[in-house]
Amino acid sequence: MRNKIYIVGIGPGREEMMTAEALHVLEQAEVIVGYTFYLKLLGERFQGKEWLSTPMRQEAERCRLCFAEAQKGKKVALVCSGDAGIYGLASLMYEIGKAYPETKLAVIAGVTAASSGAAVLGAPLNHDFCTVSLSDLLTPWDRIEKRLQAAAEADFVIVLYNPSSRKRNDYLLRACDILLRSIEQERACGYVENIGREGTRAETCTLLELRDRTVNMFTTVFIGNSGSEIVNGRLITRRGYHI
Amino acid sequence: MRNKIYIVGIGPGREEMMTAEALHVLEQAEVIVGYTFYLKLLGERFQGKEWLSTPMRQEAERCRLCFAEAQKGKKVALVCSGDAGIYGLASLMYEIGKAYPETKLAVIAGVTAASSGAAVLGAPLNHDFCTVSLSDLLTPWDRIEKRLQAAAEADFVIVLYNPSSRKRNDYLLRACDILLRSIEQERACGYVENIGREGTRAETCTLLELRDRTVNMFTTVFIGNSGSEIVNGRLITRRGYHI
Repeated sequence: MRNKIYIVGIGPGREEMMTAEALHVLEQAEVIVGYTFYLKLLGERFQGKEWLSTPMRQEAERCRLCFAEAQKGKKVALVCSGDAGIYGLASLMYEIGKAYPETKLAVIAGVTAASSGAAVLGAPLNHDFCTVSLSDLLTPWDRIEKRLQAAAEADFVIVLYNPSSRKRNDYLLRACDILLRSIEQERACGYVENIGREGTRAETCTLLELRDRTVNMFTTVFIGNSGSEIVNGRLITRRGYHI
Repeated sequence: MRNKIYIVGIGPGREEMMTAEALHVLEQAEVIVGYTFYLKLLGERFQGKEWLSTPMRQEAERCRLCFAEAQKGKKVALVCSGDAGIYGLASLMYEIGKAYPETKLAVIAGVTAASSGAAVLGAPLNHDFCTVSLSDLLTPWDRIEKRLQAAAEADFVIVLYNPSSRKRNDYLLRACDILLRSIEQERACGYVENIGREGTRAETCTLLELRDRTVNMFTTVFIGNSGSEIVNGRLITRRGYHI
């Protein structure tokens, strides 16, 4: 693990939802880089490690911190929630890593919110789906809008990451209005708050109802495709088997 | 676990890539339903269990077998590779489960091939992405074609599941031709064979090169978006951070 940084997806929260491989890498690490919030999620097992972080929005600095520690000869793991390669820091590590050719990188896959949220709701992703982040910090809104529209027209199941924040509290409403241009109001939808953490809460509703729901920043939203339905409170997307 | 069936995603193959939760559920199960091929992947730990299966294409019968065993009072787990809710049997279980209202279902999320393959390739999914299965057993080809075209035009990263089989050995070529209508020939792409299993092999190439590659049925294919690049043999999709 010397001069090799592991970029580890820890899944939604509870340690049981990490892979054995991810747990093993964190056990081997001397320095763990990531939000201190994750330390709380991971529990006492990793309290003894050196734990480093940078404030929100300082993601590039956080990555550089990993390389600096690795160059001191430390065994370093960078942790991201969910899967580090899905709206996480994996690609930024590779970009910054161009300046550190002697340091190897390895990504350890984790369970992303699309998977873990789907498991709570039922089986909404059981056909072609796409993920769209509603955060316009790094992506212009017109590109987000174009993707939502294309996904709706091509009948993908749609998973929305980052549907809300303090400054973007009407973004879910705006997204639903775009989707409602081509999807019927009664389309089966659902969302899950705090997946795999204390206070997990799942709701199903129609697309029109979703438009006026208030969700927090720890929520993942699912818009069904034309073959989705709500069965006993679960959101299900048919694969197409004849039964 | 009586009268409750667990639908378990075991990830790509190696036991270390399962979640602790999935391992725990399989340890508790008395009957495990799934391809015998998975038993080999899972190793000796589960040799002592009662292992039941049905031939390929008999997915509905496999699901009904689960309910029949649960009704005998057995603790039943149905295993799928990757995530059971992504091109797996989770939604079919809910559909068939309408006839068994006394039996509860729970999905245990796993690491799907999009995540595990991305980790091998680098970080290709680090922006909005979609998954498309090229299998037309359950989905008409014109719907697959429409989704590929929409995904390409809206600049999604695209993950292709089931890119090939004995009867569909030109489907990857056909998909690439559809994508090449709106994506440049030099677009950065990659694919991974046998993720998490013996013989894992990752390749990067351009979209035009991908068109003429032969891949086996245990391959997951990644088509980058306009911000993807190949860095030291790794396929990376920029998230948009300023560095």
